[in-house]
Amino acid sequence: MTAQAKPTSVSRSIKTMLVFPGDTNYHGTMFGGNLMKYIDEICVIAAMRHCGRRVVTASTDSLDFKSPVRMGEAVELEAFVSWTRRTSMEIYCIVRAENLETGERRTTVTCFNTFVAVDENGKPTEVPAVIPETEVEKKLHASAPERFERRKKRREEQFYIDE
Amino acid sequence: MTAQAKPTSVSRSIKTMLVFPGDTNYHGTMFGGNLMKYIDEICVIAAMRHCGRRVVTASTDSLDFKSPVRMGEAVELEAFVSWTRRTSMEIYCIVRAENLETGERRTTVTCFNTFVAVDENGKPTEVPAVIPETEVEKKLHASAPERFERRKKRREEQFYIDE
Amino acid sequence: MTAQAKPTSVSRSIKTMLVFPGDTNYHGTMFGGNLMKYIDEICVIAAMRHCGRRVVTASTDSLDFKSPVRMGEAVELEAFVSWTRRTSMEIYCIVRAENLETGERRTTVTCFNTFVAVDENGKPTEVPAVIPETEVEKKLHASAPERFERRKKRREEQFYIDE
Amino acid sequence: MTAQAKPTSVSRSIKTMLVFPGDTNYHGTMFGGNLMKYIDEICVIAAMRHCGRRVVTASTDSLDFKSPVRMGEAVELEAFVSWTRRTSMEIYCIVRAENLETGERRTTVTCFNTFVAVDENGKPTEVPAVIPETEVEKKLHASAPERFERRKKRREEQFYIDE
Amino acid sequence: MTAQAKPTSVSRSIKTMLVFPGDTNYHGTMFGGNLMKYIDEICVIAAMRHCGRRVVTASTDSLDFKSPVRMGEAVELEAFVSWTRRTSMEIYCIVRAENLETGERRTTVTCFNTFVAVDENGKPTEVPAVIPETEVEKKLHASAPERFERRKKRREEQFYIDE
Amino acid sequence: MTAQAKPTSVSRSIKTMLVFPGDTNYHGTMFGGNLMKYIDEICVIAAMRHCGRRVVTASTDSLDFKSPVRMGEAVELEAFVSWTRRTSMEIYCIVRAENLETGERRTTVTCFNTFVAVDENGKPTEVPAVIPETEVEKKLHASAPERFERRKKRREEQFYIDE
Repeated sequence: MTAQAKPTSVSRSIKTMLVFPGDTNYHGTMFGGNLMKYIDEICVIAAMRHCGRRVVTASTDSLDFKSPVRMGEAVELEAFVSWTRRTSMEIYCIVRAENLETGERRTTVTCFNTFVAVDENGKPTEVPAVIPETEVEKKLHASAPERFERRKKRREEQFYIDE
Repeated sequence: MTAQAKPTSVSRSIKTMLVFPGDTNYHGTMFGGNLMKYIDEICVIAAMRHCGRRVVTASTDSLDFKSPVRMGEAVELEAFVSWTRRTSMEIYCIVRAENLETGERRTTVTCFNTFVAVDENGKPTEVPAVIPETEVEKKLHASAPERFERRKKRREEQFYIDE
Repeated sequence: MTAQAKPTSVSRSIKTMLVFPGDTNYHGTMFGGNLMKYIDEICVIAAMRHCGRRVVTASTDSLDFKSPVRMGEAVELEAFVSWTRRTSMEIYCIVRAENLETGERRTTVTCFNTFVAVDENGKPTEVPAVIPETEVEKKLHASAPERFERRKKRREEQFYIDE
Repeated sequence: MTAQAKPTSVSRSIKTMLVFPGDTNYHGTMFGGNLMKYIDEICVIAAMRHCGRRVVTASTDSLDFKSPVRMGEAVELEAFVSWTRRTSMEIYCIVRAENLETGERRTTVTCFNTFVAVDENGKPTEVPAVIPETEVEKKLHASAPERFERRKKRREEQFYIDE
Repeated sequence: MTAQAKPTSVSRSIKTMLVFPGDTNYHGTMFGGNLMKYIDEICVIAAMRHCGRRVVTASTDSLDFKSPVRMGEAVELEAFVSWTRRTSMEIYCIVRAENLETGERRTTVTCFNTFVAVDENGKPTEVPAVIPETEVEKKLHASAPERFERRKKRREEQFYIDE
Repeated sequence: MTAQAKPTSVSRSIKTMLVFPGDTNYHGTMFGGNLMKYIDEICVIAAMRHCGRRVVTASTDSLDFKSPVRMGEAVELEAFVSWTRRTSMEIYCIVRAENLETGERRTTVTCFNTFVAVDENGKPTEVPAVIPETEVEKKLHASAPERFERRKKRREEQFYIDE
């Protein structure tokens, strides 16, 4: 890889938002689908900040919802590149809900999305390596190859109704 | 389980939509996050049609994007209950993009979302079993326990930055 | 007409959606204008599936709202080509509201929209004939010429403030 | 009718808007469904200004689209009560597109929507009569009973797939 | 200035809208940010109607919110050109909230936005002068040069974190 | 003031977003009104993080747009409490546009919004003081009383069409 490796801080991206009525379902809590949309958006930003290229969503790993987010709370999404492999980047995203009156914060979702960098013709292109800095970042980086293998295996096992 | 088992056809739900400029990213293709939002919505409908209860998103499995959807194409999402386990339902969703001028259709995404049925107090409550009918539905039903075990394992392995 | 006639099943299109707070007016029921927007969208899909061309909304017939749709209910729109005439297609659309907890379904709106197929230069272009199959489709097809005449008469009678 | 009759000027309501990319379809012109949504909104305002009550959409008459509206143009919707009958109001709406660089204006759609005034319990309630003032308003008012009869006839003739 | 001066009535633009749940914050009142967005939109229309050119937002003066707008109320925004200076136009905008059941109206916000007219290459270009007609318009026109000087002074004093 | 003073870092809030087609006007640049909406949202979050109370927008100072934001760029909004006075907080917001392919960043807008903290009954309530830490924060804090006086003066001078 010729491009210069970059520390995680280059790609770290934050998106904080208020949960408005238009974001909720009919129970007064945030609609899960809206959250997934914002997760994808902040992960795209983190991926592009790292590689300086257009990126394409390759896969999203599973999401586990730990607690609902209520209308009027804030949601803070944080994303950064946790691992790279030639033309692809694994992005780690953590979502925290925050009660703005009590200051209480809690983790709502954590997940990994994978993106591929592409050039002007849409062809995959190499990305810089990432240099983890904190303990958490190092742990995430070290466990990434195993997640990569699982995704690969998962793709081979998947089957489709159309076929 | 006391409630009457129901065939897959009870929960099968379809959502067809046009991809408008407001759904796209800056490459003129559908923003992945928007697609995830619509997937969640149609899965909620399928889950509720099956159990007749409010449902809560428990997890979404991984998504692999096979091909981008272009502005002006139609997208058809189809979802149904593929398996149940006491209070939870696994929903299978398949997304097909369709070029409305040539009639060409292609599979864009397939995925599984898991929902829990809850009563008026938000407590998990039992759901009817599902009876698969077609070959595909039977295959999906038979392979569900293995996916369930993998999700369970995945949840145990997951770790969080906050902790 | 040179193009091959097509059965109604080719154009049948379904759009199911949850009614979220962002779709409602201040009485907690679905805003009529939003429903009209979704009706137009599913009718465009049905028309394009039939003719494989870009289409332009020519007219919408009158709508009668039978019952309000409440937040948290599902709405299912079904549309198909009910009649054709050289370059135009009449689309029949039926909207059903559904209480997902009780399973109760009721017809909310039925209506007819008319579209014209156009070529690359925006010029009207011929469309295939439609072959109705079910009893309902045959009834709708048989009564279409009379609706066509009424629309024509209506257009002649209409007058405008500007003139 | 006990309530005081009101001149048309009381209900006249105007909504001007820019056509943004998010309002367009994939031909770069305003999506017809979005226009119907805005028509309904301005008609609700006109109806409520006249009767001072909550209103429910009873029916919309047919729409004929005369010309597409292009992105970057302005759209001006004007609505007022054209006729009343005990608990219902007929609203006339005219939509004009405007090229803001040349100043050219053209009529895009004209239509009639009918609303019923309801009290706190959702029961239809009487509305004040309307006093037309201009020539156009008088013409619209005089021709309203005939439109009312046509709507009534239309409703009797309508049939539904469900039945 | 070569272009013909135009009376204020040429640019006067009105936008009336219902406050829906999707426009509100979690207190059931209109989210201030949404109001600012609509103010900008109606001011752009007024500016373009006056000069017949593309316009660019140069600055917005301060806004003071006098009273919250509640869900279910109507909001009427009125904007017109209050002053011009070679290539720029000052737009006055007044926002009134209206309780549609009682008919009560109150001023919610008044503000001034400044726009620059630009040609095809994005270069500032001259605009016609404006001719105020009513007492209020004359007062606004007469006090505009002082506001212009304050804005200029403000811009000189402003400083940025980046520098 | 009885509540404990808090450092600026408590309220610092960041919102990063991609500029999608749905956020742009017809020149392919971000619609100014949308930017104002997001500025208001991130300022509300900063204000609530500082005081732990519901807040009401009291005023926004003037905005000067330095450069347009193009579709496909990222926008990062940063906001924090720059000054407090009994029941009100001045929030400083800086908006930076970022070309994600070249990494180039530029300041687009800076502005001040003022909020009042309110209790359960909507009555203004005291807020903690703020402790500025960096050089920039100290400069902003020191210059705040002068801005406060200007706003007060401005409010006295303002006049309304309605009166």
